[in-house]
Amino acid sequence: MPVELNLNYTQNYVRPHELEAVWPQVAAAHNSLHAGTGLGNDFLGWIDLPVHYDKEEFARIKAAAARIKKDCQVLIVIGIGGSYLGARAAIEFIQSPQYNSLPKDTPDIYFAGNSISPTYLNEILRLCEGKDICVNIISKSGTTTEPALAFRVFRELLINKYGPEGAKTRIYCTTDKARGTLKELAAREGYECFVIPDDVGGRFSVLTACGLLPIAAAGCDIDAMMRGAADARSAYSAADMDKNDCYRYAAMRNILYAKGKAVEVLVSYEPAFAMMAEWFKQLFGESEGKDGKGLYPASMIFSTDLHSLGQFVQDGSRVMFETVVDIGTPRADFFIKEDAENFDGINFLSGQNMSIVNDKAKQGTILAHIEGGTPNIVLKIPEMNAYEFGFLVYFFEKACAISGYMLGVNPFDQPGVEAYKRNMFALLGKPGYEEERAALEKKLK
Amino acid sequence: MPVELNLNYTQNYVRPHELEAVWPQVAAAHNSLHAGTGLGNDFLGWIDLPVHYDKEEFARIKAAAARIKKDCQVLIVIGIGGSYLGARAAIEFIQSPQYNSLPKDTPDIYFAGNSISPTYLNEILRLCEGKDICVNIISKSGTTTEPALAFRVFRELLINKYGPEGAKTRIYCTTDKARGTLKELAAREGYECFVIPDDVGGRFSVLTACGLLPIAAAGCDIDAMMRGAADARSAYSAADMDKNDCYRYAAMRNILYAKGKAVEVLVSYEPAFAMMAEWFKQLFGESEGKDGKGLYPASMIFSTDLHSLGQFVQDGSRVMFETVVDIGTPRADFFIKEDAENFDGINFLSGQNMSIVNDKAKQGTILAHIEGGTPNIVLKIPEMNAYEFGFLVYFFEKACAISGYMLGVNPFDQPGVEAYKRNMFALLGKPGYEEERAALEKKLK
Repeated sequence: MPVELNLNYTQNYVRPHELEAVWPQVAAAHNSLHAGTGLGNDFLGWIDLPVHYDKEEFARIKAAAARIKKDCQVLIVIGIGGSYLGARAAIEFIQSPQYNSLPKDTPDIYFAGNSISPTYLNEILRLCEGKDICVNIISKSGTTTEPALAFRVFRELLINKYGPEGAKTRIYCTTDKARGTLKELAAREGYECFVIPDDVGGRFSVLTACGLLPIAAAGCDIDAMMRGAADARSAYSAADMDKNDCYRYAAMRNILYAKGKAVEVLVSYEPAFAMMAEWFKQLFGESEGKDGKGLYPASMIFSTDLHSLGQFVQDGSRVMFETVVDIGTPRADFFIKEDAENFDGINFLSGQNMSIVNDKAKQGTILAHIEGGTPNIVLKIPEMNAYEFGFLVYFFEKACAISGYMLGVNPFDQPGVEAYKRNMFALLGKPGYEEERAALEKKLK
Repeated sequence: MPVELNLNYTQNYVRPHELEAVWPQVAAAHNSLHAGTGLGNDFLGWIDLPVHYDKEEFARIKAAAARIKKDCQVLIVIGIGGSYLGARAAIEFIQSPQYNSLPKDTPDIYFAGNSISPTYLNEILRLCEGKDICVNIISKSGTTTEPALAFRVFRELLINKYGPEGAKTRIYCTTDKARGTLKELAAREGYECFVIPDDVGGRFSVLTACGLLPIAAAGCDIDAMMRGAADARSAYSAADMDKNDCYRYAAMRNILYAKGKAVEVLVSYEPAFAMMAEWFKQLFGESEGKDGKGLYPASMIFSTDLHSLGQFVQDGSRVMFETVVDIGTPRADFFIKEDAENFDGINFLSGQNMSIVNDKAKQGTILAHIEGGTPNIVLKIPEMNAYEFGFLVYFFEKACAISGYMLGVNPFDQPGVEAYKRNMFALLGKPGYEEERAALEKKLK
């Protein structure tokens, strides 16, 4: 299997019968999910997406990616949250965190509209100087503050650089199929459009056009990605306790939460996994963090963070467990040669590939951490490629849905995100928020 | 003051007398620290470092930085933990996270030896192709696995490229003043050396040569940085409850911990702060995460993460509080123009600088989060420059020392870091670990 779950390193903390004890809850969650009777059941489009996606649009995405490659050296991808993290995670996982710096025949990709920092925006503009540019704006409504602001700036830049007609062939809109300000503008201007489906929430959208266009533009094999997701869909379609690792993972994290763990740390030994962990944190944090509940989602990259946060994991507050993503084969290995002098005393590492050392570091760390009181769940994946990315995305999405239902929340909404937006609009003097503004300004201190 | 503490947004959770109630503990911590009678008192060199540093070495560091700028297009900085995070945090904070990509008259800087990923090492090697290279290896002993491995590789590369003599002028060693394998090698080969002081631990070492050489090589003003730290040293030298914001911050985080908060989230609204937050996480996590105690240190960049983890902060498990670093003036602002059509409906944002919008987002978020049950501590700093970096580093270092003593731990050791290393050595067959190896292999499952 492309993901293998190992629960052996939870045995000091969880008794053999405990998984069995919660399995009826797993089965109930499965039934709610597949019958479409649970909370948030208008957002279940992701379940069958890997097989029931729009094939015509998929072909258009590949054609657009090919055109982008021909037309520009820089692709600006404008989006925030679920319209940002998935694509970036995929590009770093499948290609590299150094994607932009490394030699390649695809454009550099910069993400914009994911903060309100003018410093960041100015820097991205500077990186575009003298380059040919295309833009992919990803926004369901077209009015979300961060991407809307950035799109104004880059649209104007394209119009100034290429003229109104030239700009039209360089702007790609991923938005609602029918409504919203971005859809209206695109229709009027003739920008090519791709669809954010109504029944797929932002954090579940990486396998829609939201993720697919930038990922394809970065030269990743999106066919393999969808195949991976489709295989995961088949693999985790039944609530079978012996076979469904996805559900067993969901169950185990709920067991550990019920036993008092407050933080789940997603760990990997590859820097290229860092953004995938950010994607994971949104998926689980936004799905489960509501009604005063949920595991706080955190992440670390080892061995890097063993030298910063390792002390805490080993011996600090016993608030966390680790979920270790163990990657079998690195993208490129490195043979450690013997040094005749052994001046640094590390010849005991030599005569083998560096991946072996990384692997032993992983084994040694797991044993040390469980000894220290931190349970470890291990997810083994064979390598980091497009197929594996699709498989893992689906694994986590389905685990998240099951886990959220077990926790008793609606895993598909995010009502809490509106609170800061409302305050921000009021403080910025958005028409219609006048009364709230006065009340809020009194609270500032 | 270069750092202004605002505790008003904790008032829903902490009563007025509580700070007063713990002040005797603050005073006791202060006395232990300044009398040198507390745990870990052989690692207090950081306290007076901003004024009592080695001026001759400081001048040599600046000269070396100037030589590096002349000699290479790529500086490889080899180090892990405290020999990595501080320098990287400073370069991103003072220059930019896009430092390598942006036009400049200083070399690109790549960090190596901070993981065991062969994929990452291969990529860094690829980025060096055709470039002139210098290396700064930072390691007290010279035998720490990650940096030692990377140093073997880059040293060989330099010798192959420039010959043994040429390589000598391109290798800079930051290490123990007298002992260790790296010191021995450097002495024999004639590499220029800088000192990691005996009484300054890794996570407190950014203002020593560990941080200073790479930071200076990136074109940052290290004089201003030391001045900032020296000013902070003066500002926070007395346990005066009305004036010492550093101690009040330390006290408040202990109060919130005692009231049940498990996670401190360091928040900023500037992407350039992200690595500073990683540095913070090591500082506090490694200092306090021991004996089963400590706040789990986490970080977020807003508004980016408001669209991923904002839901959790607003309405998930009430396990955290936020410490918001509020940056007054951005490095570069951006004026938002009116759009004649207002196609996106965001003209209410126009006619002002983007930093105002970022600021209102911050205010709105603080009010929303405290309403949702997450206390907010606010640290206001005027801008992101070298002086401010030095000031903030010292602020956090001293807060960490006081906070650790209040918590009842030794804030200056990290015994838990050894556990995984011992296991790793045994599993890798390091001579002397034979018995442990057999025992460990039996535990792998």
